[in-house]
Amino acid sequence: MLTHVIDEELQLVLLEPHHAAEFFAVIDANRAHLHPWMIWLEGTNSPEDTLAFIRSNLADVAAERDMALALRYRDQFVGMIGAHDKKHKTKSCDIGYWLAHDMQGRGIVTRAVKAFIHLLFNDYGFQRLTIRCAPHNKRSRAIPERLGFTQEGTLRRIALMLGDTPNAPPQLTDLVMYSLLDYEYHRLPWSQQPDTTINIGD
Amino acid sequence: MLTHVIDEELQLVLLEPHHAAEFFAVIDANRAHLHPWMIWLEGTNSPEDTLAFIRSNLADVAAERDMALALRYRDQFVGMIGAHDKKHKTKSCDIGYWLAHDMQGRGIVTRAVKAFIHLLFNDYGFQRLTIRCAPHNKRSRAIPERLGFTQEGTLRRIALMLGDTPNAPPQLTDLVMYSLLDYEYHRLPWSQQPDTTINIGD
Amino acid sequence: MLTHVIDEELQLVLLEPHHAAEFFAVIDANRAHLHPWMIWLEGTNSPEDTLAFIRSNLADVAAERDMALALRYRDQFVGMIGAHDKKHKTKSCDIGYWLAHDMQGRGIVTRAVKAFIHLLFNDYGFQRLTIRCAPHNKRSRAIPERLGFTQEGTLRRIALMLGDTPNAPPQLTDLVMYSLLDYEYHRLPWSQQPDTTINIGD
Amino acid sequence: MLTHVIDEELQLVLLEPHHAAEFFAVIDANRAHLHPWMIWLEGTNSPEDTLAFIRSNLADVAAERDMALALRYRDQFVGMIGAHDKKHKTKSCDIGYWLAHDMQGRGIVTRAVKAFIHLLFNDYGFQRLTIRCAPHNKRSRAIPERLGFTQEGTLRRIALMLGDTPNAPPQLTDLVMYSLLDYEYHRLPWSQQPDTTINIGD
Amino acid sequence: MLTHVIDEELQLVLLEPHHAAEFFAVIDANRAHLHPWMIWLEGTNSPEDTLAFIRSNLADVAAERDMALALRYRDQFVGMIGAHDKKHKTKSCDIGYWLAHDMQGRGIVTRAVKAFIHLLFNDYGFQRLTIRCAPHNKRSRAIPERLGFTQEGTLRRIALMLGDTPNAPPQLTDLVMYSLLDYEYHRLPWSQQPDTTINIGD
Amino acid sequence: MLTHVIDEELQLVLLEPHHAAEFFAVIDANRAHLHPWMIWLEGTNSPEDTLAFIRSNLADVAAERDMALALRYRDQFVGMIGAHDKKHKTKSCDIGYWLAHDMQGRGIVTRAVKAFIHLLFNDYGFQRLTIRCAPHNKRSRAIPERLGFTQEGTLRRIALMLGDTPNAPPQLTDLVMYSLLDYEYHRLPWSQQPDTTINIGD
Repeated sequence: MLTHVIDEELQLVLLEPHHAAEFFAVIDANRAHLHPWMIWLEGTNSPEDTLAFIRSNLADVAAERDMALALRYRDQFVGMIGAHDKKHKTKSCDIGYWLAHDMQGRGIVTRAVKAFIHLLFNDYGFQRLTIRCAPHNKRSRAIPERLGFTQEGTLRRIALMLGDTPNAPPQLTDLVMYSLLDYEYHRLPWSQQPDTTINIGD
Repeated sequence: MLTHVIDEELQLVLLEPHHAAEFFAVIDANRAHLHPWMIWLEGTNSPEDTLAFIRSNLADVAAERDMALALRYRDQFVGMIGAHDKKHKTKSCDIGYWLAHDMQGRGIVTRAVKAFIHLLFNDYGFQRLTIRCAPHNKRSRAIPERLGFTQEGTLRRIALMLGDTPNAPPQLTDLVMYSLLDYEYHRLPWSQQPDTTINIGD
Repeated sequence: MLTHVIDEELQLVLLEPHHAAEFFAVIDANRAHLHPWMIWLEGTNSPEDTLAFIRSNLADVAAERDMALALRYRDQFVGMIGAHDKKHKTKSCDIGYWLAHDMQGRGIVTRAVKAFIHLLFNDYGFQRLTIRCAPHNKRSRAIPERLGFTQEGTLRRIALMLGDTPNAPPQLTDLVMYSLLDYEYHRLPWSQQPDTTINIGD
Repeated sequence: MLTHVIDEELQLVLLEPHHAAEFFAVIDANRAHLHPWMIWLEGTNSPEDTLAFIRSNLADVAAERDMALALRYRDQFVGMIGAHDKKHKTKSCDIGYWLAHDMQGRGIVTRAVKAFIHLLFNDYGFQRLTIRCAPHNKRSRAIPERLGFTQEGTLRRIALMLGDTPNAPPQLTDLVMYSLLDYEYHRLPWSQQPDTTINIGD
Repeated sequence: MLTHVIDEELQLVLLEPHHAAEFFAVIDANRAHLHPWMIWLEGTNSPEDTLAFIRSNLADVAAERDMALALRYRDQFVGMIGAHDKKHKTKSCDIGYWLAHDMQGRGIVTRAVKAFIHLLFNDYGFQRLTIRCAPHNKRSRAIPERLGFTQEGTLRRIALMLGDTPNAPPQLTDLVMYSLLDYEYHRLPWSQQPDTTINIGD
Repeated sequence: MLTHVIDEELQLVLLEPHHAAEFFAVIDANRAHLHPWMIWLEGTNSPEDTLAFIRSNLADVAAERDMALALRYRDQFVGMIGAHDKKHKTKSCDIGYWLAHDMQGRGIVTRAVKAFIHLLFNDYGFQRLTIRCAPHNKRSRAIPERLGFTQEGTLRRIALMLGDTPNAPPQLTDLVMYSLLDYEYHRLPWSQQPDTTINIGD
C-alpha cells in the first residue's frame, strides 16, 4: 500500500484497484452523512463505480492533475482528501475532504489537512491553497479558520449539492472562499512541525 | 465573415485563419497599452502566433470550451471579448475583454459586454457570469459596476501579470471578483433590450 | 448568433448546439421535398441527430475541413449551403445546398450561392469550385448554369440517393460536374459586387 | 515477400520496411522520367522518405484506405500501382500507376492494371473505377482506352504537377476522367481471364 | 490475394477482410481439434469475430507488431502461422502455428515453419526465434526438435489453455521453451535452401 | 511522499516529479557499478531524463502496466525495484532491482524483494513471479535462490547489456530464468511474515 504516513494512527493512501470494494463500503455506509455535499454520490452506487474513480484518480495523479488520497485511520479507510483545480501557472489549488460519520471528533481531518498542506507547499511547490465551504456548514468552515486561512468572500451559486429528496435535481449553493498563501503558511507555528514521514517509531 | 451583429458600427467576429495578419497588427500596436494585464502578450510575437491562437480558439468554440470573439468597429478589429473557465455543470463562466488604446471613450466595451452577456444568458443558458479585475484597474472595474454586477470579494495572488521590464518574470496579482446571476440579470433594465442582430437597418 | 450577412433578409448562420431543435424542425417539414437527393435524411430523425451534426460541423469548420452554413431568411432557418471535399493542396472544393420547399422562387439560393462563392474565392483563397447536380434535376442545374460555371462532363454512378420507397436501399446516380475557376470568376460581372457584410443599413 | 502473383514474370508486392532502400533506388533512377507527373517526388529524397511512405501505406492498407502495391518484374522492382480516393459508400476508387523508364514497351502496365482491376472488382467489391490522365499524356491515356474505360470529361485544374525547373512551384493541370463500371467490366472479354494467382507453373 | 509463395501447393496468405467467412469456416470445423490449445477459440464464434481479428492483425502487421499469416494449401485455407511477442531491441520473437485436422501428415507445418523462419531471419532480421509447446503435446514438440532448435527449459504455468468442459475456466499450463539463434540457423543444412518465392514454375 | 513501508529503515517509494534531481544523483554516482547490466543507463544523462522516466512510470502504474518503486533507506534513495512484463491474463510478471554500490551487504535487496513479493502475490493477485539473472552475476542470482525460487532454464541471447567501452554497441546476453508460483510462496516460511506497513513503531 502506498501511503503518506502522518503518524502511527493516520495515513494518506493512494488508492489502487484492489481497494475498490473496501473503500466503496465506507462511502456506502456514509451516504446520509455525506448528503447533500458530495455531488459524486449520485454516480457512486457499486464497487465498480469506485474502481472507475480509482483508475481515473491514478491517471490524474500521473498527469499532475487532481490528486485524491484516502484517509486511513487505525487500518481502516475513513475518508478522503484531495487537491483539485490545480493551476500550475499560478501555483494554486483547492483542497476538499470528507470524513466518515463515526470518526468525527478525533481531530482526524485537522491532522490530515495539515499534513496535506505541508505536502502541497513543501513538496509540490504550490503558492496559494484554497478551501471552499458552504456558508452554513460550520463544522467544515472550522477547519480553514482554525488553520489560519483568510476568508476572501462568498462566491454565489458556484457549486452543486444534491437535492433534498432522491429524485430532486441538484441545486446550486454558495461557497465561502478561504485561502492560505505560501508566505502566510511559513509564518504559522504549525508549519514548522517536521515532516514525520516514516521515522515515526522513534 | 462570421459575426454577431450588435449594431451598424460594432460586431463580434469569430476569427478565422485568414484574419491572422490583420488581427496581429492590432495586438502589436497595443503592446504598451495591454501590458501588464495580458499575460498572453509574451507568446504573441508574430502573425503565426495569432494564427495558432485562432485555430486553438476555433477548436475550443467547436468543443464548447472557451469562446473568444474579436471586436470589430467600423470595419476594423479593435479588441476582443471572451468567455473562459466555462463550467457546464454549474452553468458559470468568466468574461474577459480588451480594447485598443485609441478606441477608448466611445462605449465600445460596454456595448460589447452587454451584447455578450445577452448571448451567454439567453442563447447559451449560463446562470452565473463573472468578471475579475485587478484592484487598481479602475477603468476595467467600472464595467461590471456599471452593469449591475455584485462584488463578491478579492481573490489574492490568483492571476499572472507581466513583469515591469522585458526580462522580469510574471508576477501574481489579486483580482476582485464580480458576479451577475441569471435572475439578477433579468431584473436589470438593459436586459430587456431586444437582440438587434441583423434587422439593424430598420 | 454568428452570421455572414448577405442583406437585410438573408444570412448564412454557423449553427451552434442551441439551434438543434429549431433547425431539425425545418428538415423534418421538408422530408418529402428533399427526398431522394439528401442521403443524410436517413440518419436525421430527431433533434439529437441534428445536434450531433452541428457538433460535427463545428469540429470540421475548426479544422478547415467541410463547412456548412444554414440559410436564414427573415429570421427563419430555410436551408443550408456547404463547402465539401476541400482539397487544400489544389485549392478546390465542392458546393452543395438545399432550400425549404415553401421558400422556392425568391432567389434565395442564387443569392446565397453567390455570397458563398465570394467567400470561397476572396476570403478562403480557393481556385476551383464545383457544383455537381443529378442530370434530370433541372432546378438545381439552373444555378451553376446561370452563374457562369462550365459543364465538364457527367460522372457516372458517383453518388448515392435514397431509394424510392422507405425500405428500398440507396441507389447510385450520375452527377453532372460544373466548375468555376478563379480567373473565370473575376471576369464575371457579379463578382464585382461589394461584400455587403454588416453595412447593410446604409 | 507478400505478393499478388500475376504470372511468372510479374507480381504486385506489398512493400515492407526492409524494401525501402531497394525501392528508393528505383525511384531515384527515374526522377527525370517521372517528372513532372509524380508530385510526391519532391518529398522523396532518401531511403528514409521511402521507408516513411511504406509505413504510411501499410497503415492505409490495414485501415482499408489507399492501397499501393509495387510492380516486381523478373525479381526487380519496376514501378507501382495503387487504389486511391476510396469511397466505401459508393464503392468507387481511382487507379494510379507508374513504370520505370527502361521497362516500357513490354506490356507490364497493361498486365498490372488488368490484374489490379480484377482484384478491385472481384475481391474488394468496387463498382466504379476511374483512371485520370493529363490530356497530353498519350502513353498514359492509352491504358484506359485500350481496357474499355469510358471517357467522362475533363476536370480542369484539378491536380498538381511539378514545375518545369527545380525551384518552380507546382502547377495545376487538367485531368481527363475515364471510368469503368462493374457491369461494363463483366462484359469485357478480358474480365473472364481466370485469376492465375499461384497455380502458375501448370 | 497477398501471399508468400512457398511452392505450388503451399502459400502463406495475409488475410484481408473479404476472407473472413472462408477462414472462419476452417476454424469452426476444427474446434474439437484445436481445443484446448487455442485460447482464442473462446472469442471466435462468428465470421464477424474473424473479421475483427483480421483487421486487428492487419493493424499489427502495419505497425510491425504481431504478424499472422494463413496457411493456404491447394487453394484452401488450412491453418495459420504467426510471429508473436516481437522484441525489436533484442531481435527476438516467438512462432506459433496450427493446422486443420484433416491436413495432418503431409508435412505442411514443417514446410510452413521453415519458410517462415527464412523470412524472420533473412528478411526481418531477427536473431532469436522461439517455439513454445505444452510438455505433452508431442506432435507440436516434434517440429522444433526436427528443425534443430535447442530446448532451454520448461516455463511453469505460463500460458492459458481452455478448460476441459465448455463452462470450465481456462487453466494455466507449462510450456517447454525451444530457441534457434541466427548463427545456429545459418549452420543448418535446410537454411541454405533458396527462397523459392515466385519462380516456382521453373 | 507515497511509500510502502517495510520497516523503520527501509521503504519503497513511488517517485514523483519533484524527486528527479535527488534520484538522478544516485544513478549518476553508480554508473560504473550498474554497468553493464542496466541498459537504460545510456539514456539517463540528466535530471530531465530521470524526470521523463518518473512521469512515464507514473503513467504505467496508473494503467497497471510496469511499476517501479525506489528503495529508500535511512532517508536516502539507494536503488529501485520493479515489476515488468505484467501479463494480466496469466497473472505473471518479472521482478528487477538494483542497489547503490555502497549500500551492499546490509540485506536491503533481500528485504525489499520479499516485501515486493508480498505485495505482488497478496495485494495484486499475481500467480507467477520471475527473476532473471545473467549466468555469471552471482550476487544477483543469490537472491532468487535464497528466497526459494525454482530455476527453470537459461534463455539464450535474450537481453541487452551495455558494451564494454563507451562507444561499443549493446550486446546480447543469456539470462537464467527463476520462478516462484503462488502455491509455492504460501508454503515458504517467510511468506507468513505479517505485512508490517505502518504499524512499525509498535
